Amino acid sequence: MSAEPCYDVAHLGHIELFTDKPDESLDFFVRVYGLTESGREGDSVYLRGFDDYEFHSLKLTAWHTTGLGHASYRAASEAALHRRVAAIEKLGCGLGWTDGDLGHGRSFRFRSPDGHIFELYYDTVKYKAPDAEKPALKNIAQRYHGRGAAVRRIDHFNLLASDVAAMRDFFTGALGSRVTEQIVLDSGRLAGCWFTVNNKSYDVAVTEDHAGAKGRFHHVTYACDQRDDILRAADVFLENGVFIEQGPHKHAIQGTFFLYVYEPAGNRVEVANAGARLILQPDWEPITWTETERKKGQAWGLKTIPSFHTHGTPPVEEKG
Amino acid sequence: MSAEPCYDVAHLGHIELFTDKPDESLDFFVRVYGLTESGREGDSVYLRGFDDYEFHSLKLTAWHTTGLGHASYRAASEAALHRRVAAIEKLGCGLGWTDGDLGHGRSFRFRSPDGHIFELYYDTVKYKAPDAEKPALKNIAQRYHGRGAAVRRIDHFNLLASDVAAMRDFFTGALGSRVTEQIVLDSGRLAGCWFTVNNKSYDVAVTEDHAGAKGRFHHVTYACDQRDDILRAADVFLENGVFIEQGPHKHAIQGTFFLYVYEPAGNRVEVANAGARLILQPDWEPITWTETERKKGQAWGLKTIPSFHTHGTPPVEEKG
Amino acid sequence: MSAEPCYDVAHLGHIELFTDKPDESLDFFVRVYGLTESGREGDSVYLRGFDDYEFHSLKLTAWHTTGLGHASYRAASEAALHRRVAAIEKLGCGLGWTDGDLGHGRSFRFRSPDGHIFELYYDTVKYKAPDAEKPALKNIAQRYHGRGAAVRRIDHFNLLASDVAAMRDFFTGALGSRVTEQIVLDSGRLAGCWFTVNNKSYDVAVTEDHAGAKGRFHHVTYACDQRDDILRAADVFLENGVFIEQGPHKHAIQGTFFLYVYEPAGNRVEVANAGARLILQPDWEPITWTETERKKGQAWGLKTIPSFHTHGTPPVEEKG
Amino acid sequence: MSAEPCYDVAHLGHIELFTDKPDESLDFFVRVYGLTESGREGDSVYLRGFDDYEFHSLKLTAWHTTGLGHASYRAASEAALHRRVAAIEKLGCGLGWTDGDLGHGRSFRFRSPDGHIFELYYDTVKYKAPDAEKPALKNIAQRYHGRGAAVRRIDHFNLLASDVAAMRDFFTGALGSRVTEQIVLDSGRLAGCWFTVNNKSYDVAVTEDHAGAKGRFHHVTYACDQRDDILRAADVFLENGVFIEQGPHKHAIQGTFFLYVYEPAGNRVEVANAGARLILQPDWEPITWTETERKKGQAWGLKTIPSFHTHGTPPVEEKG
Repeated sequence: MSAEPCYDVAHLGHIELFTDKPDESLDFFVRVYGLTESGREGDSVYLRGFDDYEFHSLKLTAWHTTGLGHASYRAASEAALHRRVAAIEKLGCGLGWTDGDLGHGRSFRFRSPDGHIFELYYDTVKYKAPDAEKPALKNIAQRYHGRGAAVRRIDHFNLLASDVAAMRDFFTGALGSRVTEQIVLDSGRLAGCWFTVNNKSYDVAVTEDHAGAKGRFHHVTYACDQRDDILRAADVFLENGVFIEQGPHKHAIQGTFFLYVYEPAGNRVEVANAGARLILQPDWEPITWTETERKKGQAWGLKTIPSFHTHGTPPVEEKG
Repeated sequence: MSAEPCYDVAHLGHIELFTDKPDESLDFFVRVYGLTESGREGDSVYLRGFDDYEFHSLKLTAWHTTGLGHASYRAASEAALHRRVAAIEKLGCGLGWTDGDLGHGRSFRFRSPDGHIFELYYDTVKYKAPDAEKPALKNIAQRYHGRGAAVRRIDHFNLLASDVAAMRDFFTGALGSRVTEQIVLDSGRLAGCWFTVNNKSYDVAVTEDHAGAKGRFHHVTYACDQRDDILRAADVFLENGVFIEQGPHKHAIQGTFFLYVYEPAGNRVEVANAGARLILQPDWEPITWTETERKKGQAWGLKTIPSFHTHGTPPVEEKG
Repeated sequence: MSAEPCYDVAHLGHIELFTDKPDESLDFFVRVYGLTESGREGDSVYLRGFDDYEFHSLKLTAWHTTGLGHASYRAASEAALHRRVAAIEKLGCGLGWTDGDLGHGRSFRFRSPDGHIFELYYDTVKYKAPDAEKPALKNIAQRYHGRGAAVRRIDHFNLLASDVAAMRDFFTGALGSRVTEQIVLDSGRLAGCWFTVNNKSYDVAVTEDHAGAKGRFHHVTYACDQRDDILRAADVFLENGVFIEQGPHKHAIQGTFFLYVYEPAGNRVEVANAGARLILQPDWEPITWTETERKKGQAWGLKTIPSFHTHGTPPVEEKG
Repeated sequence: MSAEPCYDVAHLGHIELFTDKPDESLDFFVRVYGLTESGREGDSVYLRGFDDYEFHSLKLTAWHTTGLGHASYRAASEAALHRRVAAIEKLGCGLGWTDGDLGHGRSFRFRSPDGHIFELYYDTVKYKAPDAEKPALKNIAQRYHGRGAAVRRIDHFNLLASDVAAMRDFFTGALGSRVTEQIVLDSGRLAGCWFTVNNKSYDVAVTEDHAGAKGRFHHVTYACDQRDDILRAADVFLENGVFIEQGPHKHAIQGTFFLYVYEPAGNRVEVANAGARLILQPDWEPITWTETERKKGQAWGLKTIPSFHTHGTPPVEEKG
């Protein structure tokens, strides 16, 4: 008999990103990338895409270096939150409850095998558009402002890890995530893995850190409505002197139309469009890509750029 | 404390559509609309979009008239199927089990308050692409053939009903659907309602039948990846002499970019693109549109065409 | 033997538009429509699209009413300018030379049969981007700023006239324009005419003024690179409370993808995309649309809105 | 005083392409690239895009190798043709008159400094759509069939040459072409040059042949209406096993959105979209790209692939 899929976690809520160039990063995220500020507290600025329904989807925090502060998912209900916390504590990676912040109520923190900090919460703060940001149509969270890349909502993030298989067990065990696609090398080693907790084809990906570091961040991605928005964003980045690492192109894995850039402090940021692709199938079986298949590059033949496997944040310290 | 959302039903699986012009309808759906035939049995042809993972998403059946044969949802698991059947039987609208057909195993049939036939199943037949239809990238079900409007997957359907509120109770009770948007007239009457069982913003809509009939069909919609696919489809329809009822334009409700046409037998068919819009929020509260708001027309001001409220299938018999 | 086409006039240079709400109109053209100011003089502000190579393509002038100040074409050379002036003087509609303004050197003014003021010049002022507006790629005039509808360049304008046939003789005689498409009613009367002096499919159109006025203005159009820019502009207009008259849709005549709005003072403004359509054929024969064909509406069946034939600027005085 | 631009040549008419795999090449051009056959004679098949107004824009000829048969331009009038022939004969590169073929009347042949064969004609054969290909809107040459990449019209071609400066003098002298953009190396050598005879930003480009050969062909390009058509074409090529050399991406030079593939016999073929870019300016001054600027790669940073400078047709014979 078929197992019941787990629906305890509703969606990726937000990530906290560290920057050692807070002013430049904030200017990038607001003016060029097109997020909107909803609040500030301490060294953090809270930001969101125009159709993110919560107070924030990005917490940008001034820090001595770059990388991931934490990644946070919203549970499907209070009861589901407690089921997940029980499962996480059983896995032995729990860190305990927080009182929340400007963006949500209390949350439970836990740690990935590679050391990334995660968080689960249910009580949230929903965004209330001030008059100047009220949309013409009331089914979007904020007016379409058209500023910069004008991204719609947070889509997914990507972590680097020293042991992808351990991360797979972590995501499936702690969040109840499903694996939708994966890279398995000829040696049998899992080199990349794409996960989802809902009908999106992925909300997080984990790939091997070829620099030999632990707990690093690869990128965060916001969704745009159309591929043409990605092409337009490329011109916006170009005209604003933003470093374009690769794209626009179409991923072979997941089929997403993508564009990678670095924000001023060095964190990689993506804009992407998935078209009408969803994973609605309850008994989806992971797609496995072989080493040979990966060597073909992206969907239309673009070779994956070497920095994709080595550039993460924070930067790796040089050994001397 | 928050209620737990219901995830028993995974997604809309297929609809059966009746046609009294079977050859013309089939030619339209394959050559112009861009579905692919996967099998035939009796008076029915089984069809699917290039990324529908099941054997079929449209069963086209020759019949003395037009309209909906039945609408069919796939449960999330065998256990979930039985939970839903128990709920449906409690509602008193169950019709009993079938042995299934070419496209799926046994299914449970039930009836809407307006008389539309529904079906739930879990055992399904997954599409296996023959060599000529194998995709270059193995994460889509079938190669992108580019034929006609080349729609990707079934998206939603729309029913006409004499009592929309009764339909709302039916969908929430039988399928565990959530209401995402609705039209409430000044009189307080529910005139339109949009439902979902997953993260899509809707998989079915019900609107009032201004012709005073019962159990009629309004339209079925397949999703395209981009708005430009809808514009291109408009040219494809134009060049093939297909009747275009309205569009392309953007719906105020749900924000979908849409185009309505009639297939040769008169059933209304839509192609649509939702952009990156999803309902990820577990505690989503229905958006309510007032009578005044609806009078503004569609998103960019296009007035809803009168036939939208009267043209359904089968046609209403003239009283003499 | 074939006649030699006339190439004396290179392109539409700019139009001067009157507004009785100068502040609101300027805010619209800069912040919402996406033009950039290049200078001011007297009651006029000079504006241009990001890839207009000249100092301006729109001269917005505060005035007691709305409508066209004048329309101005650039000649292909100094010699060509003088050939045209000679032809215009022979037609008897010349008004004489001006000393030019901020945007160009001396110009020759003349009058259409309906009373619209025209101008021809060769000496021009080319736009020099200040540092903040320098493009990343030096083959466009100004950086792509992405502000508002972010239109690229002036495309065409449309005049209302009491006698379209007289306007046709005027354009072919004075400017050496070619007729690319036209509407001929069953009565034989010319009801609409599209003209070009170069490879664009049209740079001006003239249609009948059903309000019975003379010398009125119908609309000015700027080109965007993609149809998706037009769809995006529709959202920008919607969110900024701009009145959308009709569209986005595709014209049957000329096949242009279009969207009409009114700027705050009431002048009609269009954003459009022509795709890859050009009139390269030197012996192009005008396409003639009959009354019956026009009743089919636009390309995908949208009926032309009645205000399209009556709303012009300045508004017609009510007779009491 | 300004010189008068030359308008004697109206536009690129067609090219003849050699193939040593005629069946595979024809299948590619019709089924995958989306051209339509209009006739056959001898070893040649005549093909055109759906909005090419002439009988053909591509003459595909079976031959022992690949590369350019000839390139052919249409003059603006009979008189203009004779002015050009006089200029060509003065340059000493004339080859004499032909009787024409299925696609046009008599033509004058001449030779480029590198040995490419050119042709000029005025009398042409206009395409008459058979009933099955009649468009719904009578201002396009043939119905939009949507087959394969469904390209609209011939746009430009590119030649390799041993001496680009000699080719520049040839184009400006023989055809009256204007240089719109060029690459000038630090040594002062002209390494690439883009030309136009009309308002298109280029109709032919010449780049250095790094393989040291003479008279070779680089690619032919057809225009699509939208960038999204290019992205869609990439999927069509992918699914049909066509070799994708590079793209989709945006050229720094000319700003064209492009995609390069090889047809089965090895000739390079491009699909491209120029947006709303036109060269309307009569006194356009060539944009010059330096060696340093070219090292930045394409518009969004993609490095030009090495084969772009070496792969031409016919292939260079190996020296042993």
